[in-house]
Amino acid sequence: MVDISVLMGSESDHAIANRVTKVLEETKYSFEVNVISAHRDPDKLEDHIAGSDAKVYIAIAGLSAALPGVIASKTMKPVIGVPVSAKLGGLDALLSVVQMPPGVPVASVGIDNGANAAKLAIRILDLIE
Amino acid sequence: MVDISVLMGSESDHAIANRVTKVLEETKYSFEVNVISAHRDPDKLEDHIAGSDAKVYIAIAGLSAALPGVIASKTMKPVIGVPVSAKLGGLDALLSVVQMPPGVPVASVGIDNGANAAKLAIRILDLIE
Amino acid sequence: MVDISVLMGSESDHAIANRVTKVLEETKYSFEVNVISAHRDPDKLEDHIAGSDAKVYIAIAGLSAALPGVIASKTMKPVIGVPVSAKLGGLDALLSVVQMPPGVPVASVGIDNGANAAKLAIRILDLIE
Amino acid sequence: MVDISVLMGSESDHAIANRVTKVLEETKYSFEVNVISAHRDPDKLEDHIAGSDAKVYIAIAGLSAALPGVIASKTMKPVIGVPVSAKLGGLDALLSVVQMPPGVPVASVGIDNGANAAKLAIRILDLIE
Amino acid sequence: MVDISVLMGSESDHAIANRVTKVLEETKYSFEVNVISAHRDPDKLEDHIAGSDAKVYIAIAGLSAALPGVIASKTMKPVIGVPVSAKLGGLDALLSVVQMPPGVPVASVGIDNGANAAKLAIRILDLIE
Amino acid sequence: MVDISVLMGSESDHAIANRVTKVLEETKYSFEVNVISAHRDPDKLEDHIAGSDAKVYIAIAGLSAALPGVIASKTMKPVIGVPVSAKLGGLDALLSVVQMPPGVPVASVGIDNGANAAKLAIRILDLIE
Amino acid sequence: MVDISVLMGSESDHAIANRVTKVLEETKYSFEVNVISAHRDPDKLEDHIAGSDAKVYIAIAGLSAALPGVIASKTMKPVIGVPVSAKLGGLDALLSVVQMPPGVPVASVGIDNGANAAKLAIRILDLIE
Amino acid sequence: MVDISVLMGSESDHAIANRVTKVLEETKYSFEVNVISAHRDPDKLEDHIAGSDAKVYIAIAGLSAALPGVIASKTMKPVIGVPVSAKLGGLDALLSVVQMPPGVPVASVGIDNGANAAKLAIRILDLIE
Repeated sequence: MVDISVLMGSESDHAIANRVTKVLEETKYSFEVNVISAHRDPDKLEDHIAGSDAKVYIAIAGLSAALPGVIASKTMKPVIGVPVSAKLGGLDALLSVVQMPPGVPVASVGIDNGANAAKLAIRILDLIE
Repeated sequence: MVDISVLMGSESDHAIANRVTKVLEETKYSFEVNVISAHRDPDKLEDHIAGSDAKVYIAIAGLSAALPGVIASKTMKPVIGVPVSAKLGGLDALLSVVQMPPGVPVASVGIDNGANAAKLAIRILDLIE
Repeated sequence: MVDISVLMGSESDHAIANRVTKVLEETKYSFEVNVISAHRDPDKLEDHIAGSDAKVYIAIAGLSAALPGVIASKTMKPVIGVPVSAKLGGLDALLSVVQMPPGVPVASVGIDNGANAAKLAIRILDLIE
Repeated sequence: MVDISVLMGSESDHAIANRVTKVLEETKYSFEVNVISAHRDPDKLEDHIAGSDAKVYIAIAGLSAALPGVIASKTMKPVIGVPVSAKLGGLDALLSVVQMPPGVPVASVGIDNGANAAKLAIRILDLIE
Repeated sequence: MVDISVLMGSESDHAIANRVTKVLEETKYSFEVNVISAHRDPDKLEDHIAGSDAKVYIAIAGLSAALPGVIASKTMKPVIGVPVSAKLGGLDALLSVVQMPPGVPVASVGIDNGANAAKLAIRILDLIE
Repeated sequence: MVDISVLMGSESDHAIANRVTKVLEETKYSFEVNVISAHRDPDKLEDHIAGSDAKVYIAIAGLSAALPGVIASKTMKPVIGVPVSAKLGGLDALLSVVQMPPGVPVASVGIDNGANAAKLAIRILDLIE
Repeated sequence: MVDISVLMGSESDHAIANRVTKVLEETKYSFEVNVISAHRDPDKLEDHIAGSDAKVYIAIAGLSAALPGVIASKTMKPVIGVPVSAKLGGLDALLSVVQMPPGVPVASVGIDNGANAAKLAIRILDLIE
Repeated sequence: MVDISVLMGSESDHAIANRVTKVLEETKYSFEVNVISAHRDPDKLEDHIAGSDAKVYIAIAGLSAALPGVIASKTMKPVIGVPVSAKLGGLDALLSVVQMPPGVPVASVGIDNGANAAKLAIRILDLIE
């Protein structure tokens, strides 16, 4: 059982993931961290989501950052997206994360802003008490 | 008692607000809709938040879209921001909504995407059952 | 048996799809056209790709245009992406289509440029003779 | 009594604030410098403005730079905004500072341009003599 | 004698100038409105500024909007710039108005936002009482 | 006889070309690498294409990256373009590569993404077996 | 014998070409106007330039606007480029025209600004008297 | 007597000016180099232009790069503008240089591309022989 599933699209996203976990470690909520690319490991990602009981997802990705949107299409839980700056200052990732089509929502935080992704997850989980 | 407080920064944001309420009307969740500008009615906004028992906020604003961030600084509930395209295709509003400083998270959805704001609120509220 | 599978993410992409098929109709190559959203119908998309013998894919999508990338992650055939202008003049779709992570290539053509997607598919198929 | 109140949204804005004060120190005008985040310390900001007799405000902020706009909503004095480059070369901060809704004006200077904020404040104060 | 000199770079800027004067007409401050291009009538502009006793300038211009900056280089009074959207949604004009070099400040308001230029001028003039 | 012709517009593009060849070296496909500027050596480029039996072209270029498009206008083979980041984060090169007029298609991959250009060429060549 | 050769990349650029010729018609300079695409008619373009005695070229093109740069690579005469707004407000064409590699200069005027291309050509030709 | 007048807006533009002069030194054309800010030294600039017999101007400037346009408004000689990257990758300077209003043409070269400014000046001067 885990409250928050933190997923990143690439090993190179660890620095941003650390900003997420640094905040989460100060809370009562449990979390797990995994590296699964939406583009390179689509089946592994699908299995992970199907087998997870996480209440909230935090998905970290750069470039054409499909990870948050793909997760949001496989679960009905809230998905928080963190766009990572790899090219163009992260504008590519931001637009890929936030400009989702109607029907599949992703909650985008700011570029590289792992801390706010964690804070947002906490606000959501605090509602459940 | 209301589940979702929908706020817009200007009367001109009604078209986007309607996309929010059209989705929410199909659900069991209660909501209220108000027009309060973060910049022109800061006190009214503060009173509204202080007196509200909403579990989730949806804040709709264009241009320098401060409304979602200001709400997020006044409540510990999740705040969903909807950037509205008024100038520059909505890029100004998107960046104002999403690029929040660490510590005060806003969950941004896409430009003019009121439907997804509602869908995201529903995913969050569905966690509480 | 079909040479080219043309997929679009939304019914609203039909105008751009027509530019593709208008060119393809003048050739000897066979094609089929389907509407399947990567975000809203991920399973249907997976089944479609698994059951297709298309040699080349043309994927048309706007906003956070994940469709070309998701297809490219499910097949080893060439995938041509057509970004559609829905918001921000199509910059969001262009960056989502073209900025793929290393390992999962998508061949992007210009914004709304269905004709060039068809022309590119023809150049690829002409190699096989 | 102070002529100019210089406010910055974060400790990380000190380098830009120093460009402001370096210019002001060469003048006859008095000033004070404080760090108050519009998003993290809204009440402290309100108290500060209510208790200040400053004639001009200079507000320095990055990212979703709400500080100048929030100040302008709490006072009728001129407010000069300095967008700081933290992400996207400062484009996010520039648009957040300058694209204010009608009714609540902010005078934006260029990205990181603390010197011009001071020069503009001096031009304004010189009118009073 | 005039309190505010409103200048626009081109006859095509009249719609935005009207937003300025509509606000100013409700005040006690006097103003005059002229069309002088910084690029096409540099001498006329210089004469106008040299002969004016305006306390504040409002300069309205599109494209490579040099008018506010040129005025600011010819007077020591505060100059408010209004970027007008003619191409690129007004991004060209905004950057031309706001990104002034250190030493020659211009107070930029938002794209096409003549109302805020007037409101800012009023805040400045109200200091003099 | 060569399967893939890798062309770059400038000696400064070698780092990106190396990402292409590093992937191609792991395959059965033959390739050659040349530096020919579309703008500075147009005749040499034309001769090279006329004398080549390459099945696929990979063209690497920065700034106003005309190389892929010029090649595509001289051959009926598929041309893959790799925009290189030299200025503006590579946005100039990306738009120059991808925004081709109808009739002359270029397959653009992401900024600096030589690896994906190679992967895309492999997918195309694998069709021929 | 002709002073100025006006070339456009597509029939759709005629509206901008008309702005060029409207200015040139008021002068003593001779000019001719042709439609030749750099991408679709490269040989025709080369022949045209080789057979022309024009002193100045004005090249009008949209999207990935290669026309001015290709002309500049085939002649040692001054080449003026006019970027045309077809997509993205003309930003793609502007960057394609202006961001030429060192060694092959193009003189870019503003987006859709055929009048200034003509005015610039006149300034250049007036030097010869 | 001088063929080319090279002007830069700030001492910080010397690196780009050196790229201009390095090319010009290899030619028969005479040139002089001066630092005069359009915004900070408007009168000095006017005197310089009035007293110059230069046939071509090269104007180098960053940020809100008014220098080329102001020169073009004071002379009927061709003016070449070189936008310098100081903020936003030089996009601000590029747009300020190139987006001139109809009637006052500036010939823009690429960002920081002093070499091409010199090459363009040479092409223009070569016409006079």
